[in-house]
Amino acid sequence: MFDSANLDHVVDEETYRREEPKLREALLAAQVALGRQARFPVLIVIGGVEGAGKSETVNVLNEWMDPRHIRTYGFPDPSDEERERPRMWRYWRALPPRGTTGILFGAWHSQPIIDRVMGRIDDARLDQHVDEILRFEQMLADEGVLLLKFWLHLTRDQQRRRLEALAKSPRTRWRVTDLDRKYSRRYDRFVRVAERYSRRTSTAAAPWIVVSGANANYRNLTVGRTLLAALGERLGTRRPPRAPGRTPPLLPSVDRMNVLRALDLDRAVPAGRYHRALEKWQGRLALLARHSKFARTGVVAVFEGNDAAGKGGVIRRVTGALDARQYRGISIAAPTEEERAQPYLWRFWRHLPRRGRFVLFDRSWYGRVLVERVEGICLEEDWMRAYGEINDFEQSLIDHGLVVAKFWLAISKQEQLRRFREREKTAFKRFKITPEDWRNRKKWEAYERAVCDMVDRTSTHRAPWTLVEANDKPFARIKVLKTLCAAIEERLDTA
Amino acid sequence: MFDSANLDHVVDEETYRREEPKLREALLAAQVALGRQARFPVLIVIGGVEGAGKSETVNVLNEWMDPRHIRTYGFPDPSDEERERPRMWRYWRALPPRGTTGILFGAWHSQPIIDRVMGRIDDARLDQHVDEILRFEQMLADEGVLLLKFWLHLTRDQQRRRLEALAKSPRTRWRVTDLDRKYSRRYDRFVRVAERYSRRTSTAAAPWIVVSGANANYRNLTVGRTLLAALGERLGTRRPPRAPGRTPPLLPSVDRMNVLRALDLDRAVPAGRYHRALEKWQGRLALLARHSKFARTGVVAVFEGNDAAGKGGVIRRVTGALDARQYRGISIAAPTEEERAQPYLWRFWRHLPRRGRFVLFDRSWYGRVLVERVEGICLEEDWMRAYGEINDFEQSLIDHGLVVAKFWLAISKQEQLRRFREREKTAFKRFKITPEDWRNRKKWEAYERAVCDMVDRTSTHRAPWTLVEANDKPFARIKVLKTLCAAIEERLDTA
Repeated sequence: MFDSANLDHVVDEETYRREEPKLREALLAAQVALGRQARFPVLIVIGGVEGAGKSETVNVLNEWMDPRHIRTYGFPDPSDEERERPRMWRYWRALPPRGTTGILFGAWHSQPIIDRVMGRIDDARLDQHVDEILRFEQMLADEGVLLLKFWLHLTRDQQRRRLEALAKSPRTRWRVTDLDRKYSRRYDRFVRVAERYSRRTSTAAAPWIVVSGANANYRNLTVGRTLLAALGERLGTRRPPRAPGRTPPLLPSVDRMNVLRALDLDRAVPAGRYHRALEKWQGRLALLARHSKFARTGVVAVFEGNDAAGKGGVIRRVTGALDARQYRGISIAAPTEEERAQPYLWRFWRHLPRRGRFVLFDRSWYGRVLVERVEGICLEEDWMRAYGEINDFEQSLIDHGLVVAKFWLAISKQEQLRRFREREKTAFKRFKITPEDWRNRKKWEAYERAVCDMVDRTSTHRAPWTLVEANDKPFARIKVLKTLCAAIEERLDTA
Repeated sequence: MFDSANLDHVVDEETYRREEPKLREALLAAQVALGRQARFPVLIVIGGVEGAGKSETVNVLNEWMDPRHIRTYGFPDPSDEERERPRMWRYWRALPPRGTTGILFGAWHSQPIIDRVMGRIDDARLDQHVDEILRFEQMLADEGVLLLKFWLHLTRDQQRRRLEALAKSPRTRWRVTDLDRKYSRRYDRFVRVAERYSRRTSTAAAPWIVVSGANANYRNLTVGRTLLAALGERLGTRRPPRAPGRTPPLLPSVDRMNVLRALDLDRAVPAGRYHRALEKWQGRLALLARHSKFARTGVVAVFEGNDAAGKGGVIRRVTGALDARQYRGISIAAPTEEERAQPYLWRFWRHLPRRGRFVLFDRSWYGRVLVERVEGICLEEDWMRAYGEINDFEQSLIDHGLVVAKFWLAISKQEQLRRFREREKTAFKRFKITPEDWRNRKKWEAYERAVCDMVDRTSTHRAPWTLVEANDKPFARIKVLKTLCAAIEERLDTA
């Protein structure tokens, strides 16, 4: 893996002085084109052994290009706002918007390697991280991110000499921390782990580019030219125009049964029982939300369903049990400009709660495999990969200790018609019913198919879908409250 | 101030059951109109004495209206990301976008009152807070925010009974903290301070609405109806269509002298001296940025200037001395959709650095009094008030211990022409020169006038403008580096 980097690569001063200005101008021009096309972001990850010149390389890139369109992030100890959210949250925060460049020191790669070197985790745990990271980087690539991972390498001797030199000079002594020295003492172990790790995390989509850091001229030119080549290629190749998505042919079903049709939509709460039941379950939820252990977890709840299925009413019954400081209701509509410049899931990551809080999504990331699939807003390849991306996303919430609850509110076609008509009658409800609702209604079967696929592919043991019979609003509200309480109780028992 | 709230206000159950549904429906309808007009945000501040039902009131509002379009914020101890930024940053973070409602517990009012009650600050310091807050709220009002400040009050006896009741019930005992008890022991002192404070912070734009919290029915109906009335009024009154701004007549100047014309734009660095000087001052800046004391401060630098004055080049010479992890370059272009939904300064607050960092603005909040004034993008009343708002903004940065450095890069009209022509020749610089640049050039005098006004009105002792003679690029770069170093050194001496 590091063999060729172990050779002595040297570029003499004269060559450097000749080549550097050309490279610099070309990079600047490419950066301008990147900004004006604004089709994709560039994400540069800089990893490697201590003393290989990571900072110097990044500073040179910022010097060569326009620093106003580059964001550079180091990842020291996470802030408390970061610690209270899933591990990857801080990296999602650092993703560059389309047309710009982000440079991340180590990014999501440092911690697993260091933890393994320090013996804090074993190979099995490391492999789990690797799998998570591979899927994450695949997602970035699928989202069009130009991801370049540089590994700056030094041999054992080169590193020793380098750290000594840094420690000698008063201008650079501050940079050599005890931690660095500790790493260098563990050089062999570090390189062994890093070798295995970088081999596992080198993929077609984003291979590690190993560069010898011993000679600054060689290192800078190599990194710069690699970046230039990658940029040039991507800027040249327009992706195929987004054709309207095609829904796959419905499977020939022997019977007409499916998870939705299996529901008895007319289940109801006996008249008169509703209010006592509501009080009971809201009371239960209120106490759970204040349970001492709850401060260590949190809830991400998703509410999807047919138009007019009563999502808003259900959400209000949930929030009715909570202190307003403890929850956020997020209503998902069209993404904003800043959200459109990021990978699909970015707009959901940004709303993730701190510990001890609720976030209630009225419509959610599942729009990708529902409306966007049925209406052909995204390509089939996009919504097909979304199932896996969504499972990964929810897994990271669960790994962080959050409760993930997903509800599909189902009503019958007749009941929907009744509610549409009713809404058109009531003055201040009329805004709720639009021509689009009528259009969606025409695609009832296509949506039904999409929902069944969604449930089959994203209902997991830890993040199951709850299908809610919603023709009777009281029944739906009680069932949601009950399910939510049960999910939280289960979480608190294991917390 | 609290007299009428000290009376016994009671609404009986029957009346409440009759009035509540009507109010609720009206509020929901108003909220819908608010969202669809999306002309202004609603900001509700809930303050008052402990036990007066602040949480209950907010929960009721969330229950009555659609919680998906309301964001509620409490302000416990600031997170470290908040502590590392100016005091008001956490409140800017919580401002609701147009068309939505934000409910803030105590907001920027709690801390000053509590600090005064606890004797941590004296009346003089409290008055400073009051002044800052008055200007802040005036700015919000001028920006079109519908600001409602409710003060929920209780008499001494009412509070004692209330806290006793809460402490008795197991379901509410958790809510009565020792702190509450401490406050209640200090009731008289608290109310005396609060009285003075709320009187000082009651303005025409945003008066305190004092409501007795003793009777829940009365409290809820009063708050709800006040909100409904305010909403109804604002939704009804369209603001005057934004007429194009008029620049005031230029003062008849006896001579043609002004701060710009007083500059000798051709000052230059003797050929051959530039590179040594650059190395010297970049070295100095590099060391200052790593000074142990620097971790306690930070730099906000603003770069404005004529088109083609060389801002980008100057900024690159500054960043060239820094570690890429330590600075952000922010290039200010048209605001994004999310930024347009907020008060003018929001888009700059969001970029403020944590301690020990640099943020370099290429163009800045001064666009308000430059391009927006000259091009008539905003009304005269808007850019006229901007001078004061900007001074307040920069003062809060300085109070936080940040260095604020502002540079105007000035070139002659002839030199600009030369550079425009040159840019049109060079292939990859052509993107830098647009028809707009030529248009702006025609308005040279108007811009000159705007710059002079800007300097006169916003160059303060702690945040002075540095006018940079920039016909000679090397001279401009060295002068900026020198000035920046001096400003940081001065800051470190006093730190």
